[in-house]
Amino acid sequence: MARNVIIGQSGGPTAVINSSLAGVYKAACSLGADKVYGMKYGIEGLLKEELVELNVLLDDRLSIELLKRTPSSYLGSCRYKLPEPEADSTPYVKLFTLFDKYDICAVFYIGGNDSMDTIAKLSRYGAQAGSAVRFIGVPKTIDNDLCLTDHTPGYGSAAKYIATILKEVIRDSSVYDIRSVTVAEIMGRHAGWLAGAACLAGGDDSDGPDLILLPEVPFDQDKFLARVDELQRVKSNVIIAASEGVKTADGTYLCDLVSTAGQLDAFGHKAILSGTSRYLSDLIHDKLNCKSRAIEFSTLQRCASHLASRTDVNEAYAVGGAAAAAAFAGETGKMIALKRVSEYPYQCITEAVDVQQVANLEKKVPLDWITPDGMQVTAAFEEYARPLILDEVTPVYVNGTPRHICL
Amino acid sequence: MARNVIIGQSGGPTAVINSSLAGVYKAACSLGADKVYGMKYGIEGLLKEELVELNVLLDDRLSIELLKRTPSSYLGSCRYKLPEPEADSTPYVKLFTLFDKYDICAVFYIGGNDSMDTIAKLSRYGAQAGSAVRFIGVPKTIDNDLCLTDHTPGYGSAAKYIATILKEVIRDSSVYDIRSVTVAEIMGRHAGWLAGAACLAGGDDSDGPDLILLPEVPFDQDKFLARVDELQRVKSNVIIAASEGVKTADGTYLCDLVSTAGQLDAFGHKAILSGTSRYLSDLIHDKLNCKSRAIEFSTLQRCASHLASRTDVNEAYAVGGAAAAAAFAGETGKMIALKRVSEYPYQCITEAVDVQQVANLEKKVPLDWITPDGMQVTAAFEEYARPLILDEVTPVYVNGTPRHICL
Repeated sequence: MARNVIIGQSGGPTAVINSSLAGVYKAACSLGADKVYGMKYGIEGLLKEELVELNVLLDDRLSIELLKRTPSSYLGSCRYKLPEPEADSTPYVKLFTLFDKYDICAVFYIGGNDSMDTIAKLSRYGAQAGSAVRFIGVPKTIDNDLCLTDHTPGYGSAAKYIATILKEVIRDSSVYDIRSVTVAEIMGRHAGWLAGAACLAGGDDSDGPDLILLPEVPFDQDKFLARVDELQRVKSNVIIAASEGVKTADGTYLCDLVSTAGQLDAFGHKAILSGTSRYLSDLIHDKLNCKSRAIEFSTLQRCASHLASRTDVNEAYAVGGAAAAAAFAGETGKMIALKRVSEYPYQCITEAVDVQQVANLEKKVPLDWITPDGMQVTAAFEEYARPLILDEVTPVYVNGTPRHICL
Repeated sequence: MARNVIIGQSGGPTAVINSSLAGVYKAACSLGADKVYGMKYGIEGLLKEELVELNVLLDDRLSIELLKRTPSSYLGSCRYKLPEPEADSTPYVKLFTLFDKYDICAVFYIGGNDSMDTIAKLSRYGAQAGSAVRFIGVPKTIDNDLCLTDHTPGYGSAAKYIATILKEVIRDSSVYDIRSVTVAEIMGRHAGWLAGAACLAGGDDSDGPDLILLPEVPFDQDKFLARVDELQRVKSNVIIAASEGVKTADGTYLCDLVSTAGQLDAFGHKAILSGTSRYLSDLIHDKLNCKSRAIEFSTLQRCASHLASRTDVNEAYAVGGAAAAAAFAGETGKMIALKRVSEYPYQCITEAVDVQQVANLEKKVPLDWITPDGMQVTAAFEEYARPLILDEVTPVYVNGTPRHICL
């Protein structure tokens, strides 16, 4: 009977996606898997039969520790979307032939809602085809927008990076005795979980951001400018955290507002002048006549393993392990979710949920976690997010920078 | 006899400027200073008689440890330039009256070449006026462009942040099996020290950046595009580190090239379309037809205390202490420099140099530390910079983010 398993990583990377890989790998080995394969570049690589043997690559404990400290997807990633099996079964036939060829009993896919769609389709096709292969999804996304899970591995570390660096930027921005506004642009096109995490920069030694703009609330320019102006009357340095996904009431993203003016860049293309933060910074400079600066946190949010949350690393590892356990217990078509069973002290357990209920859906920030004026989050948001950024993982520094592991 | 001293911080902040403040403060106390004053917002604040008493504020050892871990200028900063004493003595008369009033025997100013100009002018004026007050400059700048010192405190921590985050970005950028170019924009308008530090991302587990563009070498668009094209034939993900100060042979900054097209932003102003990195990214996308991304490291480079270099923190503290020692030994009109006395093992000592020889001058990267094609640094650059990023300072994490100390 087949005792091999295969693991893939998909979608945008996070700081802890490799901790989940380590978790699946270690648990699968303990549960009796003979060989643990990795897909290079996700399902897309698997379709080209690009496999690696993790047993060979990760054969000592130091490798596992380095893997947990290595950002981005160790195995590589893809953004490949499987067709509906009913419309085109070609890739499925190819994949299930490979599962047979390599004696695969379980397939694990670490990713966001697109990856859960992949697991959902594979398990549906497998059930119809009478296959014994089990399919388990392992959640991962900095965006924290998956349903049926308290939060997603990857979010805590991104939130910790945002909170830490914003706290540092706040100090940097308040060094001169002049009026200024700093706008920090934070990822999250459709949901404000990451932007909301900016509130975690606050504490005894920092006010945190004065305003937080989320995609969940339509941007009202007049109200926004009035609020900034009001803030500037009581403090000289105003700090704004803005989601890249902030949009106006008619659904237009702020970052698209400028480029619709029909301007061309130096190469004759439609100019992308901004950035949401650039737009807001220009707006403030123009309407309120004060110094303003835009800072995009960019991809650093999702790859800053040097500042990973230990809670997040441990949970990412745990969902990986639970995925292997579920598969070896005979489950299929499931995603491993995190369930918060205690607030004080914070505690999450894992549970297997129906992956069909997760695929392609997005979870937004609840509106009652956003202040009535739409420009801050409430204490409930902080209570939810604070435990997720607690504790640290010490990087293995070699020659002054953190050591990673490469495929 | 006057036994009080006063310390100011000036110019753009760094991750370790407060370590120098701690160094001056601790040494001055040990050497017998009665009161140690701080200028709020540098000389500009002093002219308004905005002083604080550091003996009161930093009265326990935990405060000193937190101060060393707090980015940006604890006392606040300014960009005030003193007039020539011969042209306008008004601020000098004011300042020396305050020195008398507060029984000041020594003035310390922590900053870059503008701040050394302040120390130079104050010491010249003091000598002419027969004042006994001593004036000592304490070097600080992430730009590393001060003369007569091996390097400047602040540079090592900025370099460590750049190397670490670039290494993480390199992994993030290479996750998909497609051709792509990532351009990371690094500070340093006039000198390439920070951009060159991108080479420190290289090591056993990382190739580091494929190209490094510095302000010292004129940008040749055809050669650049040919080189990127050549690189893409052997590797799919190309990484470029570019100084914000890269300019063409006629002296035009790349970041100004796009905005000269006469375009207006949404508010009717001349559009600032880029960023050097945005310009290069658009150029590559247009001419080589491949995916490209621009990332600005922005002010994070100068305020990321959570990733400070211990070597840098210790040296910043040491130059502060040496400044106090020099003043109490009767010296004036000096800046404390770092002198590298050993390569293996790396060792620097402090020495007092004539501040007049430092003020207003800029040190560039030596041309023989740049490869003949002008698009990389040599091993000599890495040998120079590597020791400066070694070892770490553990932040004091409270509730998931590093604890700072506030004035």
